[in-house]
Parts: sequence; C-alpha cells; structure tokens
Amino acid sequence: MYRTHTCGELRINSVGEEVTLSGWVQAIRNLGGMTFIALRDRYGITQLVFDENTPKDIIALANQLGREFVIKITGKVAERSSKNPKMETGDIEISVSDIKILNKSETPPFTIEDETDGGDELRMKYRYLDLRRNPVRKNLELRHKMGQEIRRYLDGERFIEIETPALVNSTPEGARDFLVPSRMNPGEFYALPQSPQTLKQLLMVSGFDRYFQVVKCFRDEDLRADRQPEFTQIDCEMSFVDQDDILRTFEGLAKHLFYEIKGITFNETFPRITYDDAMKYYGSDKPDLRFGMRFYELTDNAKGKGFVVFDSVEYIGGFCAKGCSEYSRKQLDELTLFVQRPQVGAKGLVYVKYNADGTFKSSVDKFYSQDDLKRWADYMEAQPGDLLLILAGKKSTTLTALNVLRLEMGDQLKLRDKDKFAPCWVVDFPLLEWDEETKRFFAMHHPFTSPKDEDIKYFESDPGKMHANAYDFVINGVEIGGGSIRIFNSDLQQKMFSALGISKEEAEIKFGFLLNAFRFGAPPHGGIAFGFDRWCSVFGGSESIRDFIAFPKNNSGRDVMLDTPGKIDKKQLDELYIQVLPVQK
Amino acid sequence: MYRTHTCGELRINSVGEEVTLSGWVQAIRNLGGMTFIALRDRYGITQLVFDENTPKDIIALANQLGREFVIKITGKVAERSSKNPKMETGDIEISVSDIKILNKSETPPFTIEDETDGGDELRMKYRYLDLRRNPVRKNLELRHKMGQEIRRYLDGERFIEIETPALVNSTPEGARDFLVPSRMNPGEFYALPQSPQTLKQLLMVSGFDRYFQVVKCFRDEDLRADRQPEFTQIDCEMSFVDQDDILRTFEGLAKHLFYEIKGITFNETFPRITYDDAMKYYGSDKPDLRFGMRFYELTDNAKGKGFVVFDSVEYIGGFCAKGCSEYSRKQLDELTLFVQRPQVGAKGLVYVKYNADGTFKSSVDKFYSQDDLKRWADYMEAQPGDLLLILAGKKSTTLTALNVLRLEMGDQLKLRDKDKFAPCWVVDFPLLEWDEETKRFFAMHHPFTSPKDEDIKYFESDPGKMHANAYDFVINGVEIGGGSIRIFNSDLQQKMFSALGISKEEAEIKFGFLLNAFRFGAPPHGGIAFGFDRWCSVFGGSESIRDFIAFPKNNSGRDVMLDTPGKIDKKQLDELYIQVLPVQK
Repeated sequence: MYRTHTCGELRINSVGEEVTLSGWVQAIRNLGGMTFIALRDRYGITQLVFDENTPKDIIALANQLGREFVIKITGKVAERSSKNPKMETGDIEISVSDIKILNKSETPPFTIEDETDGGDELRMKYRYLDLRRNPVRKNLELRHKMGQEIRRYLDGERFIEIETPALVNSTPEGARDFLVPSRMNPGEFYALPQSPQTLKQLLMVSGFDRYFQVVKCFRDEDLRADRQPEFTQIDCEMSFVDQDDILRTFEGLAKHLFYEIKGITFNETFPRITYDDAMKYYGSDKPDLRFGMRFYELTDNAKGKGFVVFDSVEYIGGFCAKGCSEYSRKQLDELTLFVQRPQVGAKGLVYVKYNADGTFKSSVDKFYSQDDLKRWADYMEAQPGDLLLILAGKKSTTLTALNVLRLEMGDQLKLRDKDKFAPCWVVDFPLLEWDEETKRFFAMHHPFTSPKDEDIKYFESDPGKMHANAYDFVINGVEIGGGSIRIFNSDLQQKMFSALGISKEEAEIKFGFLLNAFRFGAPPHGGIAFGFDRWCSVFGGSESIRDFIAFPKNNSGRDVMLDTPGKIDKKQLDELYIQVLPVQK
Repeated sequence: MYRTHTCGELRINSVGEEVTLSGWVQAIRNLGGMTFIALRDRYGITQLVFDENTPKDIIALANQLGREFVIKITGKVAERSSKNPKMETGDIEISVSDIKILNKSETPPFTIEDETDGGDELRMKYRYLDLRRNPVRKNLELRHKMGQEIRRYLDGERFIEIETPALVNSTPEGARDFLVPSRMNPGEFYALPQSPQTLKQLLMVSGFDRYFQVVKCFRDEDLRADRQPEFTQIDCEMSFVDQDDILRTFEGLAKHLFYEIKGITFNETFPRITYDDAMKYYGSDKPDLRFGMRFYELTDNAKGKGFVVFDSVEYIGGFCAKGCSEYSRKQLDELTLFVQRPQVGAKGLVYVKYNADGTFKSSVDKFYSQDDLKRWADYMEAQPGDLLLILAGKKSTTLTALNVLRLEMGDQLKLRDKDKFAPCWVVDFPLLEWDEETKRFFAMHHPFTSPKDEDIKYFESDPGKMHANAYDFVINGVEIGGGSIRIFNSDLQQKMFSALGISKEEAEIKFGFLLNAFRFGAPPHGGIAFGFDRWCSVFGGSESIRDFIAFPKNNSGRDVMLDTPGKIDKKQLDELYIQVLPVQK
C-alpha cells in the first residue's frame, strides 16, 4: 500500500495517527539537527520532519533525497509548533519513522514552483514537468470540471451525446483539411473534421432533436498564438426550435457554468446586441462589455468647420474616457502613436479634454469653438473631468481602430478585470459577405445558415442587405461560440446557393449527402458550437488557450516534447501508396 | 413555437388541453370518415385523429401527407375510445384543429420500423434514416447513458479527464498507424493515436494520479466484422497503486454501470481467474462464465488402452454437457463436423453418453471398458443423463478447439442468455510471447508492462516463464478491457528491453521521450483501457459494435453514406508535398 492519505488531506484532528504518504520531494530544508521535507502530490503539500527521534538509517536515507524524488513515508502526525496558515495542511507535520525511495530524479531543467525559472520553450519540451506546477495543474482541473458540468447540464436538458466520425470526407470549403491516406483504398484520402457541422445536421434529420458532443476538430491553418491545429468544440444542435429557443437553452448552460465553476449568479438575461449595433457602438462583433466607452458618431456634428481632415472623411467618431481629462501631453502622444501603428492604421488622434472647470482643451481648438466642443461632449454624455478620443477616416477601418483604442483605454483604466465577466449575445449577423477580390458573395457563417424571414425578399434585389438567424456568444470581448438556424427548405437552399454562385451540379458534388438527406423530411433545426479551449481560458483568466491544453503544439504545429511531426519510413509510405515530393525551402 | 409537448409525453390527465406537437408521420390510416395519423419523434408516438369535426381545409392538408413528412399540429387532447396499452400515449389522441407541413419527404428507401425491409448496405447508405428506427436510436441512447455514468463515477472517484492530442508521433510497434501529412512541416507526418498509452504515462509522471479519457483511437488494420478503423476507448491510469487497487477501482466502475444501466446488483467480488487457469479450464483468455462446462484433462487417464489416437497425442481433454446423453447420432455427427471445420481444426470428436440407467455408450467403446468410462465420468463430475465431449491433439490447439465446442454447446443449450451477465477478471498474463517466425520474444501487453515481482529472477534464465501484472476485464466471453501495472524503474525497463531484443539505441529512438520523462521521478503506476463500443454492444445484447456507432465504416474502411475516403485535388496534395503512387490492383 502506497498511501493512507494524500498530501493535501491531513488536519489537526489526525494528530497522533500513523499514516503513510507518497509523493514528490518539493523542497528540503536541512537545519543541522532537523530536516524538513515538503512532500507534494496532486492534492497538496505535507511537511515531513526528521529530528533527533528519527532512526539513524532513516535520516541517512533522507539525506540522499533530492528535488522531485518519489518517496513513500510512514510516520506519526504531529502538531506543528509554528503553524503555517497559508498551507491547508499547515497545522501538522509528519514525524517520519520509515522512508522508501520509490524513484530517483535528476535535477529538473526548471524549478517546479508557481513562478518557474523555465522559459516557454524549455517548459514545452518538458511539458510533463511543467504540468507538475500548481497553476498549470489547476488549469487542467478547471477544464475537467467544465467538461463534467457541461455534460451534466446538457444531459439534464435531454441532450444526447453522439460521437461522429473523425475520419470523414474532405470539404474544400473554409479552412484547409488535414488529410489521412487510406491504405485499404489506395489513392484515396479521409479528412479530419473541421467541425461535425454536416453530421450533426444529419442527426437532426434522424430525429435526435437535442444532440451534443465534446469533440476534437482540426484545421490546417497557419497558426497564431491563440490557435491550435487540433482544438475541442462543444458542438450542439436542436430541432423544432427557433433562434430564441437556442439562445435561451445555451444561456442556461452558460449560467450553469458561471455558477458551478466561478460561483457567479446572473439573474438577468444576457444582453443581446445586433451585429450592426455591435459594430456601430464598439467597432467589433465581439464587444468587451466589462466597461462602457461606447462610440458616438460625430460625422454630421463635426463637419463644415474648416478642419480639412474631418471634412474629407466618411466617418468621424469617438468615445468618452471617464476621468481622463488630466492625461498628460506625453500620454496623449503615446495614444496617438498607438493608433498610428500599422496594425491599427489611424492617421491621427483628436482629443478633447473636458476640464474640471467646465472648459475644453482639444487638439482641434483652431477649428472648433468651446460651444462646438461642449455640444460634442454633451452628445457623448461626457462630464467635466472626462477625455474625448476621436478618430476619423473610412468608416469600417475607423470603427476597427476605435475598437483597438477603446480596449487599450480599458486596459489603462484597469476596466478589464479578469475576474469580472460580461457575457452577451451578438445576433443578426449579415447572411453574406462580399469579397472584393473574387467579386462574389461568401456565406458569413456557412451556406446552410438561414436568412431572416423578413429579408428573404432581398435575395435577388440586394443580397448583401440580408441578415441571418446567426448568433455569437461573447464573454469579455472573446468569441466563445457561434451558431445559426439552418435552412431546411430546399427551395430556400437553392436560392442561397444561387446567391453564392454555386451551381446545382457543384452543390450536388460538395453537399450531396446532406441535400439527399434533406429530401426525406428534415425538421427545422439550428445549433451552436463553443470553443472549449477558449471558454476554459476565459474562465481561467488567461489569454492563451495553450495553458488549458495538456500537450499543445507550437506555432509551427510541432509538439516539441513528442518531437512530432516526423519522418516516416518509405515502407510505411509505400503501403499507403504515397510518396513525399522534394521540398524546396 | 413548434411544440408544447413531445410525442411521448401526453397522458390521460391532459385530456381537454390544447397542445402543439411536431414530428414525423409514422403511419396514416384512412378509414373513410376518419383518418388516424401516428406522429413520431425521439420520445414516442402520439395518435392524431381527423374526423367529421375537423375543419375541411385541415383534412385536405392531412390528405396530402405521406410517410416521414415533418408536420406541426395543434389540437385538443381527447380520451381514446379504444385504448392501446402497448403505447405509452395509448390512452389519448389529438383532435387536430390545425396542421402545418414543415417539410415533405420522398418515400424512404426502406420502412422506418423496428423490423425493417432494408438490407445492411442500403441502411448504411441512408444511415440517417436507419437512425430513425427505434432499436438503432435506443442503442445510441444506451451509449449516451453509459458515457454519462462512466464520467459520473470516475469524477466521483477523483479521476480527472484530460484530453491528449490526436496528432501524435508514429510508433511503429503494434498495429499500423494512420498517418497525417503536415503542410507546415513538409515531408513530415503526424500519426493518429492507437491509444494514448505513453501520454497517459507521462501524465502520471506529471502527478495527475487518477486520469481518464473517453477517447477516439485509430488502428489501420484489416477489418473484421467487429473492428472499426476508429473506435472509442475509456482510457484510465492511476499512480501509487498496485494491481489490486486497480481491479477494485474499476470493478467499482463496472458495478456502477451494471446497476445504473442494466439494473443489476453484484454483491460479490467478480471472479478472478489466472490466465493459466482460464486456458486450462476454458481454452480461452476470455472465458464465457455464464455457464459451466469447464474442461477436465484426461491425458493420463485415457492413455495406454490401445487407442492409438489418444496414445499419440500431447493432450486429451473434454467437458461434460449436462443432460445431453440423449443427443442423437445426427446431432453428434454434426458436432463432429463442427469441430472438424478448418477454422476449428480438430481431427475428430470422442463422445461418452452417461445413460440415465448408469451405463455408458461412447465412440471409443472398443478401447475403454464401462469402468474406464465411469472413471472419466466421475472425474469430470458427470451424472447419469450427461454427455462427455472429448478432443485430443496438440495441447494449445485442442484447448482452443474445446473452447469453440464449449461455446457451441452453450448456444445449443441456450446458456448464453444475452440478458445474463457474468463478468470476471483474467489476471497474471504471461509477460512475453515467443514468436516462432522471428525467433524472438514479444511483449504480450506492451514493453512497459511490469513482470510479477517473484518472476523477475527468470529474466535471464527463462524469460518465457514470467508472468505479468497484467489483467483483462471480460464479460460473457467478450474482452471489455485490459491493462497492467507499468514498469517505472529504469533498471527493470532495461532488462525488459534486453529480453525483447531492443537495444539501448533503439529504445531511445522509439520511446525516448518516455524514458526521458522517467528520469525525473516517475511514480509507480498502472492502468486499464476499456473498449467503449464493445462494452455498449455487450450491454445492448448485440455482437456487433457497429450497431452502437452512429456512423460506422464498412469492412473496407469506407463510410458509404459520406462516400469517404475519396480522391483529392492535386492542388491539395501539392500543398502537403505528397503525391499518390500509381496503384497496381
């Protein structure tokens, strides 16, 4: 028997008991006559003590120990003379009477502490050691708990979890597929699913009216910091529902998770913002609602006063930064440089200080009177002491730049508290997106997303005007999930394909099995998919999904610990009827 | 709103209520003045009635309906004059006042009934329609419930579910890997995991002392009826445990599932049979313990009486078929032919009838006296009225043939009731398996399985004699899971590699990352993996795992519904730096 208790379990009421513990040596303090060892496992740390009462041979063994050795000890629980209130087991220690070294350890390449001295690369190579660290372990524990609660809730709502295949057909829409050569079908390939979208729609045709799956999905995209080639999706679909049923159901899921995981109760319905409003007021389809600073358009208000920059642009708008009228010249210059960076792309920044005494000081005083500025300030609901920040230019890019500036001000004013949560729904997304390059419409969500009833009339006349029954779930400016009500009527589907420039033949080749299925009684249906990794990261207060994945890949799609991907024997490739082409680097 | 109730919900206490239901038209009975429609959804069937009180336009619409049309109806719940006790909703019907056709359906290619007229191939092609059928839907509902209960139990036992990657390194041990070319690392490949074996061992090194995962695994093998290229494993691992801890923990899981899913309580500990005994008494490492008929060896007992067949063989053994002494000549001839089939491979069958009057009649009366036969019968614990069935030959093949014969007799005597469950553990598997062809030992489980302490002394002298801390979980003769205590000591691991003829260099290349990890304090650990598909099939009383997979593949690894695998554009392959070799068929 390796242990009677875990290292996180013993309390003052066990004093006098003989116990056996197993774990890792976290730290050794040798104080001459006494030695203290901190013994660690997944559940906590317990202090071991070796003193003049400890048998000599046991002390000799203890002296051989090093950091991260795996040991099993037996001893008596004793009350500590100097208690440690920061440790859950801080009231007690173990007077060790027996010790067994279960395994030795070389000195780890970095310290196994909450704050480690190991760099990112080293920790990834030795990920199994990084996972011993408290914060990393807690991330995976959070993920585990989220997973269990998600299932508990959906099971309670009569959703049925159905596994869809991982070896599917390649659908050359959207991102690139990962391909898998088939040995038994030479020259043919499976693809790994980018999402189980079409399969879950088939399950709706099958009559499983509430489906979910926590499922690995794969996208062969060039990676950014917050993207992984494989990621986990909470995939859901419902039949005989409209958009409101879906939002209500999954708002229930979110509230359940907020309560069970974060201890937060939301009594009110989550805000629902249309896509158009989100863009207008926040310049983003995933607004961070932890703080205000919504945008006010000044285009009409600010033109015609001789300020050429404003007079020549499509859009002028800004927001009010509360209590920032004392911003220094240096701070304002920095903000100007911030918005002028190529990735933001604004020409310049106009500021208006609404001084505490009710006067105004702005970068455009030459063109605008105190009355003009007062009118702006009133319109933007500013008070004395506030600062107006204004950008101008092409509407879409200016809104985007304002969004970046707003988030920066949120950071500066510490309004983006990771322990505060502001969820919302963004609804009524545009159905189609015009692509200037190819001069055609693309589906903003996917080709099976249904337009809003009242917009169907624009299919021929003005397709770009149509809005969709499509929605995103956003927390703190992070898109956690998205979905739509699907088209289930074949005439409407045909109209959609026409708008997308997809011929009947092409549709048959690309989506034949789904269109076939729809001929046999498809129910009205819709769904949503959540990014599980991302939801975990938002709940965990981190910006990186990697922190919530046990064995993540780096930006080149490599697992540096497993050292994969790697070369493969010719024999193995021959069996698959493929060969590697010469690579020009 | 599409519905106020499901089609399985309404009872007599709702009579008089106005309700709205949505679902599929299961059947239409037009009795002239009255029309009855059975409306189906996932939850059941409700009868709709259209009669002289139904508005004319509604009747006109009802007359346009066909099988599998999707409709929404509103009406009043009425008590049926002739109730149907076989239906849960059989006390009521709906007097329809409004109807809306949500979607039409073509006539399905087979009937959507419990017993369908569709053949296997047709049902697989239209799997989404097959899934509408009650028995198939119930299989997936069983699987869902199993999945939830497995998680509930393991979560309660402080197991933490950790997702391991699906894009891993290729390990050319065991079965063939499915490979995935990496676009970002040209000429290199990922492999899909055959199991997360090494990764879960790394998690033990990380200190997650109780891990599980319900995870897709992949093996590129030539398929049999009960194999799929992708399958789901309940993968578990624990630290600081010995074999007994693991068996106890997962016996707990099994009992939980037996109780929650099948309503069966097991008070006793599951039988534990050593591999050697299982082979000796049942000729199989997965004995079906729903019935007895264990084997008795007669080798010493039956030799030396002049019967050349027996005198010349390594092994003679048989079992007693209770109450079968009246088997006819024809039945016995059929059994003889059965064991002589090439896939069984016995030379012949010796029978001894223990007649009700206490006399014996056998196929070897010429060589054995009544006393001889009485001695056999007593040894084999036979009673008057029983039949002894005896095979002889090379020991291993004869035991295997006896196993097949025993199962056949179990079937003939209807002792293999699919609603009866006999779980057991098979323990103490051999550590190594000698391969005659390559003249070397292979690991019977895998190279990290630990030998039994008392057998370590045979590593150099007689490796084949060693037994392992390896165990299988078997229900009704089906292997549901298996696992082992792992080696965590590097000296022992080195001995194991030597026994397997794996050099240090080779070990480094193949298992380097794991051996590396083991240098930093690996705890004692072990685990088990269950075949989730198979466990579902045993609980569901089916021999085919396909019935419990939403979208299975056929024996050529094809999904005939998705029509995958398929050809891929050259452009896509070019991006992956691979090309297809010409295929010679």
